Parts: sequence; C-alpha cells; structure tokens
Amino acid sequence: MLKIAVLGAGRIGKIHAANIAASPLATLVAIADPYFDNALQLAKLYGTNAVKDPLELINDREIDAVVIATPTDTHVDLMLAAARNGKAVLCEKPVDMDLDRARRASEELATLQVPVMVAFNRRFDPSAQQIRQAIVRGEVGEVHQVMITSRDPGFAPVDYLRHSGGIFRDMVIHDFDMARWLLGEEPVSVYASGSRLLNPALAEFNDVDTCMVQMVTASGKQCHINCSRQAVYGHDQRLEVYGSAGMLLNDNMRASSVRRFTHQLTEAREPLVNFFLERYADAYRHEMDAFIQAATGAQPVPVTAWDGVMALKLAECAQRSVESGKPVSVD
Amino acid sequence: MLKIAVLGAGRIGKIHAANIAASPLATLVAIADPYFDNALQLAKLYGTNAVKDPLELINDREIDAVVIATPTDTHVDLMLAAARNGKAVLCEKPVDMDLDRARRASEELATLQVPVMVAFNRRFDPSAQQIRQAIVRGEVGEVHQVMITSRDPGFAPVDYLRHSGGIFRDMVIHDFDMARWLLGEEPVSVYASGSRLLNPALAEFNDVDTCMVQMVTASGKQCHINCSRQAVYGHDQRLEVYGSAGMLLNDNMRASSVRRFTHQLTEAREPLVNFFLERYADAYRHEMDAFIQAATGAQPVPVTAWDGVMALKLAECAQRSVESGKPVSVD
Amino acid sequence: MLKIAVLGAGRIGKIHAANIAASPLATLVAIADPYFDNALQLAKLYGTNAVKDPLELINDREIDAVVIATPTDTHVDLMLAAARNGKAVLCEKPVDMDLDRARRASEELATLQVPVMVAFNRRFDPSAQQIRQAIVRGEVGEVHQVMITSRDPGFAPVDYLRHSGGIFRDMVIHDFDMARWLLGEEPVSVYASGSRLLNPALAEFNDVDTCMVQMVTASGKQCHINCSRQAVYGHDQRLEVYGSAGMLLNDNMRASSVRRFTHQLTEAREPLVNFFLERYADAYRHEMDAFIQAATGAQPVPVTAWDGVMALKLAECAQRSVESGKPVSVD
Amino acid sequence: MLKIAVLGAGRIGKIHAANIAASPLATLVAIADPYFDNALQLAKLYGTNAVKDPLELINDREIDAVVIATPTDTHVDLMLAAARNGKAVLCEKPVDMDLDRARRASEELATLQVPVMVAFNRRFDPSAQQIRQAIVRGEVGEVHQVMITSRDPGFAPVDYLRHSGGIFRDMVIHDFDMARWLLGEEPVSVYASGSRLLNPALAEFNDVDTCMVQMVTASGKQCHINCSRQAVYGHDQRLEVYGSAGMLLNDNMRASSVRRFTHQLTEAREPLVNFFLERYADAYRHEMDAFIQAATGAQPVPVTAWDGVMALKLAECAQRSVESGKPVSVD
Repeated sequence: MLKIAVLGAGRIGKIHAANIAASPLATLVAIADPYFDNALQLAKLYGTNAVKDPLELINDREIDAVVIATPTDTHVDLMLAAARNGKAVLCEKPVDMDLDRARRASEELATLQVPVMVAFNRRFDPSAQQIRQAIVRGEVGEVHQVMITSRDPGFAPVDYLRHSGGIFRDMVIHDFDMARWLLGEEPVSVYASGSRLLNPALAEFNDVDTCMVQMVTASGKQCHINCSRQAVYGHDQRLEVYGSAGMLLNDNMRASSVRRFTHQLTEAREPLVNFFLERYADAYRHEMDAFIQAATGAQPVPVTAWDGVMALKLAECAQRSVESGKPVSVD
Repeated sequence: MLKIAVLGAGRIGKIHAANIAASPLATLVAIADPYFDNALQLAKLYGTNAVKDPLELINDREIDAVVIATPTDTHVDLMLAAARNGKAVLCEKPVDMDLDRARRASEELATLQVPVMVAFNRRFDPSAQQIRQAIVRGEVGEVHQVMITSRDPGFAPVDYLRHSGGIFRDMVIHDFDMARWLLGEEPVSVYASGSRLLNPALAEFNDVDTCMVQMVTASGKQCHINCSRQAVYGHDQRLEVYGSAGMLLNDNMRASSVRRFTHQLTEAREPLVNFFLERYADAYRHEMDAFIQAATGAQPVPVTAWDGVMALKLAECAQRSVESGKPVSVD
Repeated sequence: MLKIAVLGAGRIGKIHAANIAASPLATLVAIADPYFDNALQLAKLYGTNAVKDPLELINDREIDAVVIATPTDTHVDLMLAAARNGKAVLCEKPVDMDLDRARRASEELATLQVPVMVAFNRRFDPSAQQIRQAIVRGEVGEVHQVMITSRDPGFAPVDYLRHSGGIFRDMVIHDFDMARWLLGEEPVSVYASGSRLLNPALAEFNDVDTCMVQMVTASGKQCHINCSRQAVYGHDQRLEVYGSAGMLLNDNMRASSVRRFTHQLTEAREPLVNFFLERYADAYRHEMDAFIQAATGAQPVPVTAWDGVMALKLAECAQRSVESGKPVSVD
Repeated sequence: MLKIAVLGAGRIGKIHAANIAASPLATLVAIADPYFDNALQLAKLYGTNAVKDPLELINDREIDAVVIATPTDTHVDLMLAAARNGKAVLCEKPVDMDLDRARRASEELATLQVPVMVAFNRRFDPSAQQIRQAIVRGEVGEVHQVMITSRDPGFAPVDYLRHSGGIFRDMVIHDFDMARWLLGEEPVSVYASGSRLLNPALAEFNDVDTCMVQMVTASGKQCHINCSRQAVYGHDQRLEVYGSAGMLLNDNMRASSVRRFTHQLTEAREPLVNFFLERYADAYRHEMDAFIQAATGAQPVPVTAWDGVMALKLAECAQRSVESGKPVSVD
C-alpha cells in the first residue's frame, strides 16, 4: 500500500483525498494545511492525521508520495523539496506562473530519480482517453487538425481571476496540454485573439473572457481552441480530431440520457453536467490511479513536469500574441 | 413516355399528379374528378386535360396507366375496370372496407396480366428502404422482433373518422403492411388493445384513439405496434428491427439539423416534420418511380393487391381482438 | 451511523457491501455466507466481521438493518426473521418463486412496524428517476402508453436458467415493476408471447428466450415490454413514456461520448455499457442511499414487499398467458 | 411569370435550369452555351430554346432575368452587360478572381437600378437559415464566436485546382460569406494557416489542402474556419454560433435516419450526404426562389455583388496571411 499525504485541504485537495481513500492500492496517511481546521476536518472524514506544515510531511520518512494541492506560488518549492526527499509527487497545475522558474524546476526534477507527475486531469477523462487511444491505433490516420472547445459555465469571482495569471495560464492551459497530447507534435507558432465581451471589469488586470487560439506544428498540423469564461448553457468541453483517415469527436456529458418531447420542445435533453468537479470526477479518479501506478514504478509517469512547462509556455505565447496582435514562435 | 391519368383530384391525387409531372419517364395526360372544377384546376397547373368521369379515361386507348385516388368505396370497381382494359393501376389504400370484396377483386386482378400496385407509400420512405435492405442483406441476422411507433400529430375531423373504418383500417393499416414487409413472414395471430383516452366522441361509432397490437408469426417472430391519433409533439413514425445479429432503428425526420442550447434548454432540436404529406414527400416520389418501373415492365410490382388484402385482414383481426378481448387467429 | 449486515457474499452482496462501506451514513458491520471463505474475503476487504450463519446476524441486537442477497428460496424466511427482530430489511428480488408464499410474507411484513424494501434497483437509475419525476410533475400530461425494451447482452448459463423460474420471473420481473411504477396504475390484464429463437435447450424446462408482453390498466393505459436473452450489440435497456402532453424516453448508456467517422463508418459510437453491474452501478448506489433513508425513518420505503408481490404476480400472469395463448386477468 | 435565361449549361447551370422549370413563378425561356450541344441538350429537357452566344439573350428584350453560370473570367462582363440592359442577374460566385475588378463592377452595379444577386447558395440551406433566424431573433443573445467546419469529401482534379484561384478563393469563399452573415459584423483582421498534408502536387501552383482561419471583428467577435480538401468520411459542413445567451449548431445531413447496432458497431449511421449538389439541393432551390422574389421586386436582394466582393477580399487576405505568416488587416 502506497502511503500518500495530501498537501492542501481545499477544493482539489478534497477530491484527491477521497480518491486516495477509495483506492485499494494506497492509504491516505496525512493532510497538511496552514488553515489547520481545514486539514483537521478533512483528516477526520477519512480517519487520518492532520498537520499544519506541509514540510512536516515532506520530511516524514514513512510517507511515500505527496499530492501538492496548495496555492500555485508554493508548487515549485514543495515539488523540489518532496522530490529531493525521494517522494513521488503529483502536483496541481500550473507548475508556476513564471515560465523560467517552472523550467528550471523541471530540469532539476528530471535529474532526480523520482516519479513527478503534473495533474492535467482532463487527459484521464474516459472520452479523451478513447480519442487518444484511437489516434494511437491509427483509426484516423495522420492527425491533420485538432479543434478544442473549452467553455466554463460561469465566471469565477473577480478576486480569483485577478490572481489567476490570465485566461491562458489559468483556463486554456488545460487545452494547451490537450492540444499537445492529441497533436502528437509540438506547436511551433501560436496566434491568439482575446476580447472582453462578458465582463469589462477584467480590463483592470488586462485579462480577456473570450478567446481563440490557432497553432501550427512543424509538419503543418493545425490546432484551434475556443474558450469562454461563461457559457450560459453549461460546462462545454468538446474535442475534435480530424485526420487523413477519419474524424473523432466527443459530446458533452449529461446526468441522464433522458430526452423530452412536448408541444414546445423537441428532444430537449438533460442539462450538461455542471462543472469540472462533476464533469471530471471520473478523470480525477483515473488520474489518481495513474499516479499510484507511476509512484510505485508499475507504469511510466504519464504527464511530466516538462509537460507542465510546455503547456505554460504555450499559454505565455498566447498571452504575448494577444498583446502584440501577431503570431508568436515557440522558441 | 408512360401516359398516366390521375383519377381523383383531392389531396393525394395532387401529390401523384406532381410526381408524374416531374418524372422524366412519364407524362400526365389527364385528370378526372366528378367535382370538375377540381379536376380543371389541377389539370391547368400541369397543362393537361380534365374530365369529369373517371371511366372516360379508363376507356381511353391512349392512356397506359391510371392512378386511383378516389374515395375508398370506388377503388375496387375502378381497379377492375382499368385492369380489364389493360391499364397499369396504382390504387390508394385501403383496397376496400370489406375484406371479402377486396379479396375477390385481388383474385380477379391476379388472373389479368396487368401490373396492379397498392399505394403503401411508407415502404418507399428512404429510412424504411434502408432498413428493409439491411434486413435482406442479413445485417441483423434472423429477424426476431419488429417494433413500430405510429402516432399522428393531431386528430382528423370527427366526420372523417366516422367513415374511416376505424383506427385499424384507416391508420394502423400502414403499420400492418410495414410489419409484414419487415417480418418477412405472415403473422398468424393478432392481439390488440384499444382505448379512448383522447376523444370520448369516438364512442358514438365505437372507435378508439390509442391502441397497441401484438402479433406473432408461425416461426415465433414477434411484432408490436403502438398508435395514437394525437401526439402533441408531432408526427412520430419510428421503426425498430431486432434480430439475432443486431438491431436497426430510425429516428424521426426534422426540417433542419439545428440544435439549440440556452440557459433553459439543452440541445432542443427543430420540430418533427409535421405531417404525412411533408414527412413522406420523398416516399410518394419514390413510390411513383416504382410504379412507373412496374407499369413499364422494367421491375416487378413491389406492393400487390394481395398485400392490400393482407393488411386489411390484419386490421380486421385487430378490430375483432379489441371487441373480443382475445387474440385472433389470421385465417 | 446505521449498522448494516449483508447476508450473502455473492455478486450482488459484494455490490451492496461496497455501497454501504462508501456511505457516510452507514457502517458495514458484518457479512454472512455459508461459504465461509466468501464471507471472510469480503469482510476482510472492508475490515469488518464474517460469520457463516445469517441467523447469527439477524439475532444480533447491535445490528440495525440487514441486506438479503442470498438464494431466492431463503428470502421469505430471512425477511420475516429479520423483520420480527425489528431490523430494517433490504431484500433482493424476487421475494419468492411462489406467489402465495410471497403474498403471505408480504401481509405479515405489513403488520410489523419495520421498514422492508425490495431491491428493484432499476427504479434508482438516474434516467428512470428523471422520467418518473417528469411524469409526476405532469410534463407529459396523462400517461397513455409505456414501452419498455429489456435485452440482456448474453445468455446466463443453462444451469442458472433451469432454476431461474423462467424469463418472466427472472428477467422481465424488473420490467413489470418498472411498468407499474411508470404507469401509476395497476395492469388488469396481461398478454404475453414467448418464443425460443435463440436456444432450443430451453425447451427442456419449458422456458423461452424472446418475448413480448402487452398489458392494460383499468382506465385503458397500455404497456408494451419486449425482451431478449441475447442482444449481440449489448445490454439494451430503454424506456419510453407517451402521454397526452408529450413523450419521454431514454437512451442506452455508454462508457464515453466519443463518435467515430471513417470511410467505412459514420458516427459509430462507443459500445453500450456492458452488463447490469456496470450499467446499474449508479442505481445500486442510489438504491442503498434510499434504503438507508428508509431504515432510519428519514424517508418512506420506496419499494415495498407488496411491490415485490405485484411484480411477481404480473410475471406469473405472463407465464400463464404464454401457456394458454390468451390474455390473463390480474385477479 | 418571370422570364429567365440561363447562361452556361454546365453542372451549376443545370441545377438552376431545373429549379426555374419547377417554379410556379418563373419560366425558363432560353439556355446559352458556346458548346452549343450542351445548350441544346439542356434546352430540350425543358422544352425551351438554345443559343450559342450569351449576349444574344442579354440583348433579348423579352427576357427579364439571367442566371450567369459561365466560367469565372466572364462573370463581370456578363453581369454588367445584363444589368445595363435592365435585366435582373443571379451570378455564380466568385464575382471575379481579381478583387479590384470585382469591386469596380460592384460599384457600377450599385448605380444601376437592377436587382443583382450573387449565388452564395449555402445561405439558403434550411439549417443555415434556421441558425441565422435564431440569431436575428436574439435566441443566443450577442454573437461572440462563430465556428465553421468546411471539408470536401474528395479532391477536385488537379487541373481544376490549378485554375481555381486557390483554396481560399475557390472553397473557403463560401465560409467567408457565411462568417460575415452569421457574425453580423465585418471582420477587421484575418489570420490563416495553410498546409499541404494531402497532396504534394499542389506545390506547383502554391496551393494548400488543409487550412484554418481566425478572424476578429471591430467589436471583438471571433470566427474560426477549418477546411480540408478531402474528408474520407464525406462532405462535412457544420456551423456553430456561440453567444451571450446560448449556442446554436447544426449536424451534417444524411440520406436516412437509420442507425445500426451489431456486434461490431454501435449506432453507426447512414453516410453523410455525399457532395454539394446533393447536400445543397434544397439550398439551390430556395436560392432560386429568393432570386425570383428579388427579380420581381417582391423582396430585397438577399446577397449583393458587394457581398461577393467582401467574401473575395477576405479570401485574398487569408491568402496573403498564409504567405506572410502574419494576420492581415482588412483594408
């Protein structure tokens, strides 16, 4: 049984704690959170220990692995400390707001012989997995175009957005990772357009709420991403992969498969699964399974710190493209 | 060019006239209707001749084929007269309200060397054709069960219903024909349930508005039909064929493929194509093509007078089953 | 925390044990199984106790509730013993193979002041719940027709089928319960057709593999059920409710929402969720939640022993209808 | 009855001739084609006149309107000649290969008091119409993003492509027109990426087979187009409009609504309607209806020569963007 500690008892920490507790291959041995009450409450739910200081757990020889679900600006230090102590690490995205810092951390982590995984949970969504596996099996031949739709059902609070690093680093970063994974090749140029069509308050910190990205790889594969902070009809998350031998796409998920027909409606379906905790519940569970496999050496690390750096780099290119109005070369 | 006359300038006669006029293989040479103004108006539209008496056209040596779209009680006499005169015949359903009369006519028609076709238009619907062809190609193996949904969007006027012969002879007769065609084997027993859930006025002439039928063939294949006179959400026409190697089913048709997503709605689609003239516009066109092929001897008659008799017989069995509360043997 | 014991460590017992263990409102306190190794293994998984004799747990004062997942012929005795001891009971279907015995048990249970629930798990499927709630809210007006499709992906072993009580008591019993629940009114007549189209070996014990049922209620509502022991394309479970103001229907569930388009395929989707343990995983979980609510008195019992008797009665009527070739009155 | 002549008896001329012949409001009075046999054959089919020289018909006082379906390099001269003679004009796209020439023609046409329409047939597709009408009714609030998928089922011959003006002028031009119409606002910048992923032979004339376009309007609305010369699964034509109050999208059309389920397949559907003549048959018919309405003054011209110029301009910007690797400002 892999002994895992969760650092950070917030929204995401809770999900990871539950998935560790439910796994037959791992034990949840401790929770750390400077807001000690939060740590205590979560620990109690699973009959485990609570501490205030994450470093206490990172230094605990009994612990095999840590999940880092703390604020972004602590990720790099905690990752490095844990990895230097020989612990397997699952770290929430983004690795850091600063690309150089993330890159340097990634380079050091690569020298340590420790499994370090970055939590791009969407890769573990069953539909995304099916699409990726179909690509790998060659079902659509050579991939030519990838289209990603990524719309949140509603705005996060402005205070959150102010410190989020902007729509590309905070939200589209998931789609940059997805794009790299599905394209199977690195984008070499990024062109992005961003508008404030929903919320003028974002002007204060120069953020946008509606954006499109177009990327090209060295061999000429193309990728489009569209993104909105607020889709009134729900959390809209779709993928489309077009290749020389066919197309793959997925639909949004719904709570049930019921369709309604009345005088006013034809075939109205259940609302979309509301938001990411619900939409990606399976993905979070499979992600934890994958981390446990990687931490025990049974499988390679499926998403590395380098993947985290690359997604961040694309986000930064997109940000610079919006600012300059021009496509930005990726290095 | 096959020279065709249309007998009856009502709703169905108009459709047939238009399809003949549009065919590159046939010419619409005349319209007959005792309401001479109707005949005249329709003839004018296509630059052709109008007469009052259908027999005038049946006796016209220049005419190769007639389409009988007159009231039901004239069908048998006109069919026989036309066929005796050597004309190819397309006759609207039902052949007659009286099963014995229809059977005797069918027997005489079988002795004449003339193509006589009964207008079960739904067989010519593209979806029905695809399903039938998939069955014939063996895509679902042996057919085990056929399910038919048949719901009109709204009541016909009570005066029409009073003389319609009842829901089984008037409406479900199409589904009895479809059942025989898809089962590929004759039903040997018919059990039907009928209720007045929509319109108590039907009690006056002992009709029902909501019914179900269950039929079995000699080899044990099963068929279900459900039927309603008034589906508030539109004309609901679906088929399902279940066999040893798979299932085939079709959806309803819509005017466009647009889907709408709003705060209130998820994936509401365009209304169903409203009623049979619109829903089966393609079917009527393909039916006429098939008749022209049969009339010119290029293809065998796809739906014979005997098919008309058999569907009527099943309708009569269903009627008797509702009255007796028991399954009725066919023969 | 409600203290629950599971009687029977087989396939279904395991599901219930897992759902109890995962509930924040209940504790799994013991497992009983005459095959003591099975009990032991399951108990170990959840760190709980194992015994050989179910009665030992039924007589244990510390236990609040029992889940009966033992062979059918023990259901009645265990239900009565547990209820007489004041324990809340969740009993697997069918209550018994013998209708009279089930009815007498149900009558005695009704006199005891104990929550006794029969495990018709499909009522707790999210889609079935949505449909039922839409009916209750009046979204389709008066219910006129209910259509149920119920096809297993493959045959159970013949040895199992030999002692299953026949297709109606073993398999369609779920659909009889669903029909009563969705119709909102008791069927007064049952007509059934049964054929052996898949497996002639069933002749030995006079069972069928392919059947249709047609039922009518006192007010004229109609219900159709179609059932097959072996749908090669997967576990096919669909409901359709047609009423004066609209229609509700559900689709089958799939492991992902991916659609594939290639030269050969258009829009091929993921396979259907394979079989009932997977298809109804959510339903089993919600069923346990509902039982815990009922056992603690927070909610009324959603499916009573009487419901179990009524479904069994409809199954028996269907069996007699196949044998006699006639509709059977329900009492 | 509007008297219309068709100039050009090729593939598109034939469609227009058939739609004029079927219209109750117009008469097909003549066909012109320098390949006189083609003109003769088409004229014979509809019992009308054939001439060799288009100008003969343009100078014929008896003719009210002309449809220009001749090679692109003749469009401008014929449009101007016809309009100067007071004839209503429906001209195939593109107006010309040369933007300046098209613009000057458009400016002169605007000074003549004659209805001149450019044949962007896709606007008249029922699904496109439903989407546009829903936008106009405000069903999705303010439009924020438009996504257009435009993939042909297979390559045109290389000889055709060599003189086609390139993928943007030949193929994406339809999508540029659609984008303007759905955005309801002019794009101010165009960024395009183009690759040869399918056919290296296009290098000879510097064309691409796979492209993406990203455009922005002055108010920040965004538009994405993806395009391929060869989608092996069929003619893929989809629209998506995302706005402040919802989303609209359409699916591809199919010849029937049949779905297949077998051991190998789940829910495979009929192939997509194959190519544009079939896919847009309804659109061509509605386009002719609209032209007849405009030519008789009953309705305003729905697609003007100016629309033709603007689509061409966007195509030219896209071409320049691919060449420069930068977004191009529209003027």
